[in-house]
Amino acid sequence: MTTHAPLNIVIHGASGRMGQALLRLAAEAPDLNVVAAVARRAPTQRVIEGVPHFAASELAGLPPFDVAIDFSLPEGVAALAQLCAERGAALVCGTTGLDADGEVALAALAQRAPLVWASNYSLGVAVLTDLVARAAALLQGWDCDIVESHHVHKKDAPSGTALTLGQAAAGQGAQPHYASLRAGDIVGEHTVQLAGLGERIELVHRATNRDIFARGALHAARRLAGRGPGRYTVADLLTA
Amino acid sequence: MTTHAPLNIVIHGASGRMGQALLRLAAEAPDLNVVAAVARRAPTQRVIEGVPHFAASELAGLPPFDVAIDFSLPEGVAALAQLCAERGAALVCGTTGLDADGEVALAALAQRAPLVWASNYSLGVAVLTDLVARAAALLQGWDCDIVESHHVHKKDAPSGTALTLGQAAAGQGAQPHYASLRAGDIVGEHTVQLAGLGERIELVHRATNRDIFARGALHAARRLAGRGPGRYTVADLLTA
Amino acid sequence: MTTHAPLNIVIHGASGRMGQALLRLAAEAPDLNVVAAVARRAPTQRVIEGVPHFAASELAGLPPFDVAIDFSLPEGVAALAQLCAERGAALVCGTTGLDADGEVALAALAQRAPLVWASNYSLGVAVLTDLVARAAALLQGWDCDIVESHHVHKKDAPSGTALTLGQAAAGQGAQPHYASLRAGDIVGEHTVQLAGLGERIELVHRATNRDIFARGALHAARRLAGRGPGRYTVADLLTA
Amino acid sequence: MTTHAPLNIVIHGASGRMGQALLRLAAEAPDLNVVAAVARRAPTQRVIEGVPHFAASELAGLPPFDVAIDFSLPEGVAALAQLCAERGAALVCGTTGLDADGEVALAALAQRAPLVWASNYSLGVAVLTDLVARAAALLQGWDCDIVESHHVHKKDAPSGTALTLGQAAAGQGAQPHYASLRAGDIVGEHTVQLAGLGERIELVHRATNRDIFARGALHAARRLAGRGPGRYTVADLLTA
Repeated sequence: MTTHAPLNIVIHGASGRMGQALLRLAAEAPDLNVVAAVARRAPTQRVIEGVPHFAASELAGLPPFDVAIDFSLPEGVAALAQLCAERGAALVCGTTGLDADGEVALAALAQRAPLVWASNYSLGVAVLTDLVARAAALLQGWDCDIVESHHVHKKDAPSGTALTLGQAAAGQGAQPHYASLRAGDIVGEHTVQLAGLGERIELVHRATNRDIFARGALHAARRLAGRGPGRYTVADLLTA
Repeated sequence: MTTHAPLNIVIHGASGRMGQALLRLAAEAPDLNVVAAVARRAPTQRVIEGVPHFAASELAGLPPFDVAIDFSLPEGVAALAQLCAERGAALVCGTTGLDADGEVALAALAQRAPLVWASNYSLGVAVLTDLVARAAALLQGWDCDIVESHHVHKKDAPSGTALTLGQAAAGQGAQPHYASLRAGDIVGEHTVQLAGLGERIELVHRATNRDIFARGALHAARRLAGRGPGRYTVADLLTA
Repeated sequence: MTTHAPLNIVIHGASGRMGQALLRLAAEAPDLNVVAAVARRAPTQRVIEGVPHFAASELAGLPPFDVAIDFSLPEGVAALAQLCAERGAALVCGTTGLDADGEVALAALAQRAPLVWASNYSLGVAVLTDLVARAAALLQGWDCDIVESHHVHKKDAPSGTALTLGQAAAGQGAQPHYASLRAGDIVGEHTVQLAGLGERIELVHRATNRDIFARGALHAARRLAGRGPGRYTVADLLTA
Repeated sequence: MTTHAPLNIVIHGASGRMGQALLRLAAEAPDLNVVAAVARRAPTQRVIEGVPHFAASELAGLPPFDVAIDFSLPEGVAALAQLCAERGAALVCGTTGLDADGEVALAALAQRAPLVWASNYSLGVAVLTDLVARAAALLQGWDCDIVESHHVHKKDAPSGTALTLGQAAAGQGAQPHYASLRAGDIVGEHTVQLAGLGERIELVHRATNRDIFARGALHAARRLAGRGPGRYTVADLLTA
């Protein structure tokens, strides 16, 4: 990528934990150029030097960009999606719990520009999801179990990622069962077990650092830019 | 043990899967001498050569023995326990779902001879139970989860072994949570996880061959013989 | 498959452990018809009722067949391969340590009929190999480690299967490292770990019963029959 | 502990990664009072507010303390050990690669005050070491394998912790074999496998955050203070 012009990106939700990680990791990537950091109220205290900050109410004034990366709150997604649609810019969206306005705006955007929405941008999870679908397709009739472990503060169970893995297996005819553990400060672990007679396959993902989610979102931004309009999945972006 | 006289044992429930395994493995052990194989109806078809067979109704006619090993049905346990009490012989009992008569007879036997009852005689499981208690005692405040996997034909969940492991942890103040997987033809796997901040311990037992249960019961018989009256646990018998 | 005529198969190496397992499992499969069991000296003592037995010197007299399955000794492979070539029959070969005559005969056969040779016919291992190649392709730059565990009587290390998995990863640019454990009576376990920053994928196969190798060879026979001439891998046969 | 007076501690090696973690975590512990932070050259830039800083050449001027915690360089250990001996203060030492002067000074200190030296102060690793010794004692004749995984920058193999675990097993008659993986940014994982016939035990420790080493050293300081003179191990300090 170093021979190309850097990708111009906007970080939307810049004051949150994911936003801060995105700013920090993007600053270390020579092929990425953050042209704006957007937070509800600008400027934030936790400034990354050299990045222009904007309030969420100032979207119209953003400089030109190729991709917006959004980890914000549900109520701000619609406005950002509309801006991307107007500008023909790609959107990597990781905000969960979208309201109807947000969903409509994303659908409209996908008519005009490339969009990816996911609850988990880890590259490893995307690969695991791909492998689970392939394994389930090849191992018809094997029993499928999914065990996920997360820190004790996580309230939903099974995790969204476990459900995504289960859907990948179910799409090939498997019938997944789920088990959830909540213990210590585990960042996130997922095991998909496929069991036949006398043999078994276990497909495991272990996350030990939350940076993987920001790193994966930046990876998705690189892969999404320049694609045609449409709604993509992380799996669609695994290969260039 | 080879310098001592062999231990004289009775196999009660000789026609069942465990009984057959006990007969086969005892025949290979030079320190064990099976003086009688008892089945509901004797002789069984699956005879081990050289072992006298008896019907369950013929207990009074059994030759002298040091230990009886019982993997039969609930209704036959009381009579065997009474015989052991009369003879002052030890009893290794693995029959589950005992009725009141059986429980009373075992309690009476424990006044006169050594008794061990367990739902799982695997040496590895006994050691794991011991380790779990020790770990839980040393890791106060860590989160405790127990995951067990068995073949799809196993109906109860959590497994009796998982509950035993959980009691070992709970006895030291831990609050175990359980998850159960039913898949393929898995003989039996148990994982006890203790999770703190930034670190975790996993204690795992994997059984791949059902012979371990019979081998462990024979091991318990060797360790139980010659002890004083009382009710022992498999853990009590871990050390000579 | 039940609506088709059964597949007529020959078991070559019928007196060995694999041969006996093949005969036993094929007898339980309604879509398979064993027309001949070939051993060095026929008849063997361990007869499966209803299967005609032949000595290795009597190959010319075998009845018509669709597929031969060979788990014998290196010196007998060439003659069987020649027979398959003459008859236009498929060959599933699992004999290891082939001599030059055997290799030449297999190469000649592949010009006239479908052939698969593998050191491990487990379906799970074939799928794992497929997944490893895919994961390594998608996770460029991640570190690759392969750990395999087998019983203490296994002399070679790393296992042939570990090397096959490593080749699948190396074919996508990964640089696998190997570790081998020899312990107890472990049937066979293989873990391929791909590690990035802050996350990791583990792809595991656990074998608990040797029947999976015979079951996989029968599966390969079903998939190989009716294909065009050529040398196939187990991976080629994963999909119908 | 809150009803007692806080423990007065000195952090020796305060400018290193471990020293900084010790200062940060001790500041959060109400039962600990850091009376001095010692670095080769004081004051360091990375000051923790309210903690008096000293240069290594100013040891004689340290205020009274109960325990010194040392994660510094080999050449500074002898002077600190001498000071602890003079003052009758306990020493928790985690500096590796000690020279002869350091070893002599530690031996002399152990005559006058309590000392613990370890290469790994994680509580989980200490417990695992204890469990491994107990398991190896109870599972005579089982095969013992130790697999450890660390980040790619770790140069020594097997890890010091793996060797400690192996010694715990060997002390009970086991013959451990080692395997080492170097991958990604793995903080540290150790698996001790004990394999019999048909069953297996795996004892695993996973570290995901380096803070556990500092947290464990503080824990050791609490447990060491007030003991009689002598050389203690982390295992000795597991129970109060």
